[in-house]
Amino acid sequence: MPNPFAGESFISIGDKTRDQLESIMDRAELMEKYRNKGTDAARGLLMGTLFFEPSTRTRLSFQAAMKRLGGDVIGFPSTEGTSVQKGETLADTVRTVSQYVNIIVMRHPSEGSAKLAASLLDIPVINGGDGSANHPTQTLLDLYTIRKELGRIDGHTIALAGDLRYSRTTRSLSRALCHYDVKLILNSPEQLRMKKDLLYELEERGLNPVVASDLEKSLDEADLVYATRIQKERFPNLAEYEKVAHAYEIDRDLLEKTGNPHLMHPLPRVTEINPDVDDLENSVFFEQAGNGVPVRMALISDLLDLEVG
Amino acid sequence: MPNPFAGESFISIGDKTRDQLESIMDRAELMEKYRNKGTDAARGLLMGTLFFEPSTRTRLSFQAAMKRLGGDVIGFPSTEGTSVQKGETLADTVRTVSQYVNIIVMRHPSEGSAKLAASLLDIPVINGGDGSANHPTQTLLDLYTIRKELGRIDGHTIALAGDLRYSRTTRSLSRALCHYDVKLILNSPEQLRMKKDLLYELEERGLNPVVASDLEKSLDEADLVYATRIQKERFPNLAEYEKVAHAYEIDRDLLEKTGNPHLMHPLPRVTEINPDVDDLENSVFFEQAGNGVPVRMALISDLLDLEVG
Amino acid sequence: MPNPFAGESFISIGDKTRDQLESIMDRAELMEKYRNKGTDAARGLLMGTLFFEPSTRTRLSFQAAMKRLGGDVIGFPSTEGTSVQKGETLADTVRTVSQYVNIIVMRHPSEGSAKLAASLLDIPVINGGDGSANHPTQTLLDLYTIRKELGRIDGHTIALAGDLRYSRTTRSLSRALCHYDVKLILNSPEQLRMKKDLLYELEERGLNPVVASDLEKSLDEADLVYATRIQKERFPNLAEYEKVAHAYEIDRDLLEKTGNPHLMHPLPRVTEINPDVDDLENSVFFEQAGNGVPVRMALISDLLDLEVG
Repeated sequence: MPNPFAGESFISIGDKTRDQLESIMDRAELMEKYRNKGTDAARGLLMGTLFFEPSTRTRLSFQAAMKRLGGDVIGFPSTEGTSVQKGETLADTVRTVSQYVNIIVMRHPSEGSAKLAASLLDIPVINGGDGSANHPTQTLLDLYTIRKELGRIDGHTIALAGDLRYSRTTRSLSRALCHYDVKLILNSPEQLRMKKDLLYELEERGLNPVVASDLEKSLDEADLVYATRIQKERFPNLAEYEKVAHAYEIDRDLLEKTGNPHLMHPLPRVTEINPDVDDLENSVFFEQAGNGVPVRMALISDLLDLEVG
Repeated sequence: MPNPFAGESFISIGDKTRDQLESIMDRAELMEKYRNKGTDAARGLLMGTLFFEPSTRTRLSFQAAMKRLGGDVIGFPSTEGTSVQKGETLADTVRTVSQYVNIIVMRHPSEGSAKLAASLLDIPVINGGDGSANHPTQTLLDLYTIRKELGRIDGHTIALAGDLRYSRTTRSLSRALCHYDVKLILNSPEQLRMKKDLLYELEERGLNPVVASDLEKSLDEADLVYATRIQKERFPNLAEYEKVAHAYEIDRDLLEKTGNPHLMHPLPRVTEINPDVDDLENSVFFEQAGNGVPVRMALISDLLDLEVG
Repeated sequence: MPNPFAGESFISIGDKTRDQLESIMDRAELMEKYRNKGTDAARGLLMGTLFFEPSTRTRLSFQAAMKRLGGDVIGFPSTEGTSVQKGETLADTVRTVSQYVNIIVMRHPSEGSAKLAASLLDIPVINGGDGSANHPTQTLLDLYTIRKELGRIDGHTIALAGDLRYSRTTRSLSRALCHYDVKLILNSPEQLRMKKDLLYELEERGLNPVVASDLEKSLDEADLVYATRIQKERFPNLAEYEKVAHAYEIDRDLLEKTGNPHLMHPLPRVTEINPDVDDLENSVFFEQAGNGVPVRMALISDLLDLEVG
């Protein structure tokens, strides 16, 4: 089939069709065969990983993906000691590095930075996170994990639990779920409700999310729950934070009482998920992180138009 | 021959038999052929190098070993900028990274950390040093260097010189030498004598070490001397340190006067070994560091059950 | 043809003949075919990149070169967390790392450090910059860029503009240009004139540089202009700096008015080159950085005596 992504950049998830998302996930499924043993498809090719903001998980996962494809990686894990600290502009840095590599993955604290880079370069750019705006490969791996765990996305009840106001992952995932026929439950503390404009957007696009507060009830209804970190700094004082954080702690007792839904989390977790659930078959947050590899292998091979397998 | 290490972790040296140690060293000998030109045995495989505590020598040597085997490496050289700094537990970090790789090498300041990681993961873990407890690949490369230099370990006189109280390498090496028929001389300043319990353990296991103070006499008797760093912080004041450090400085004059024994050191050295000995054929401390590559190639290929050559 | 560089180190450009420089450039030209898709020539071989002083551009470009050749890289991007910080000498560090690799690239703040390392080691050392003394691969890529842009170096007028007093790149490039039949214009602010001894050296070697101040006139005469950064810290006060920096800003207007000479710069730039010239076909400073890859591929394969293609 023709590959619509060849030579393109991958900046956001919002402009992708359901067919495009499914096509990347189909390719990721093919990559499962190679994710632990590698392939030769990208032999001789280089990825530049430019992390203007550190992120071990995302960086290692992209590096693993490129290396499993047979390619290699150069880059920097932070701006420490780079020419960025000498005052070089983002534009100059990416134009220089683009001379050395075939594809760039970048994470940068400023919204729009990846798009800017893509507009300047002749090679594909993958957005590895631009501030609070986009982190499209996280959403891809989240969707892929849901599909893999539930067999298909359509027809299921998915609960998002925790911080739905500031969390980039749940914002982006909820938007992507508009392409699917799901029942979405938005369970958050009062202080961390999803913002109105996003809620309207979801409704307008045909997803009619249920706003909820009773965590036990939501878990009971859900086939899959996606928990997110509740950050201390969102609360006026520690006491307030601890009250809420405690109420949103998912433990084994709660999961088993509620029919044991599949449990996802973008990691790192703090108190939202009690380690006593780690052994449960439906606790798939580490597998979810691992799914970043086949998904990113798929994306990279689409953008570089590689022949795999 | 069957490989008893396939799929296993490598956490400590103390639980290994002589046959097991010899089998890794035999394999290391085979690796000499590939240590400078590489092989394809690990093509497509990934090692994760998780250095929660920095160590350039150990890290570079493991990376070289994996890359010479044809595999590749991802990881972090320190916790700077990693999710560890966001409060992620060791368990969560290693479980996440284990999703990306086939084998993990970790160095961590806490005793027992590598064992903990190994207990959580389905892939092999190599202990690259856990606090003052274990650093088994250092002991392997030390043994291998002795064997390579002297032809065989049995039947020789080996002197350990310097700090025998706090040095992890000499503690571990002396234990491993219990498997061999050697005469062991323990030469240290009074303040840095080997601890009683270890001394008793060595005696109980049939090694009857000679505790000594006259460095010249020890070097005269020894076929090989293993010097270690004497650390300033072990002494009440600088004057005391300098007196001892000076008494334990091995120089060309001393070596030639004493029959020129083979000279090893785990590096980095400070004043224990005078650079005027560097040119002597028996000064093998840099070769010793280099031996880390074939030894680690052997270990990695055992744990990953690779076909090499 | 016989390769005079096999097994040698590459420490400075000053001791190379025109034929030697041309031979590396010829080889770089052959590398253009592989710079984006890679080759297998260095499969199994390792480069050690020892950056005792950080330099992203140089480091990434060397890594890209080695990886495009099919080899791999280990090393450190700064001395942060290395044994250097534990007081290890340069000699001990390079001797240890030389045990792990086939070739070393090093950058170090001290003049003569690369030469010292080369004298100690059995493997080739490439000087990636030793303080203000040498950075020979920068000069190679500068020469190569001039040759590539102008077809050949002989017979052209080349203007160096900006800081000609402290800039290592222009000092070294001007020396290398003595091998060629060029007209050299030295255009700098009064405070940043080329030092007398270098000027005499150039004259003695048959290059008769024209010292100039009128930037527009120089650009008008030049086929190619090489601009360098004017550093704030060279001036007694900010006002003085800004006056000079402004006078040496090259913008689109100036370039088009002066016959649009080819424009090079070692990067990073600050105010010397206005971004409004970036789109001009003759603005080749990013390509210049990119040329570091084929040039370094050529040099590495010469030193390692690789068969490429």
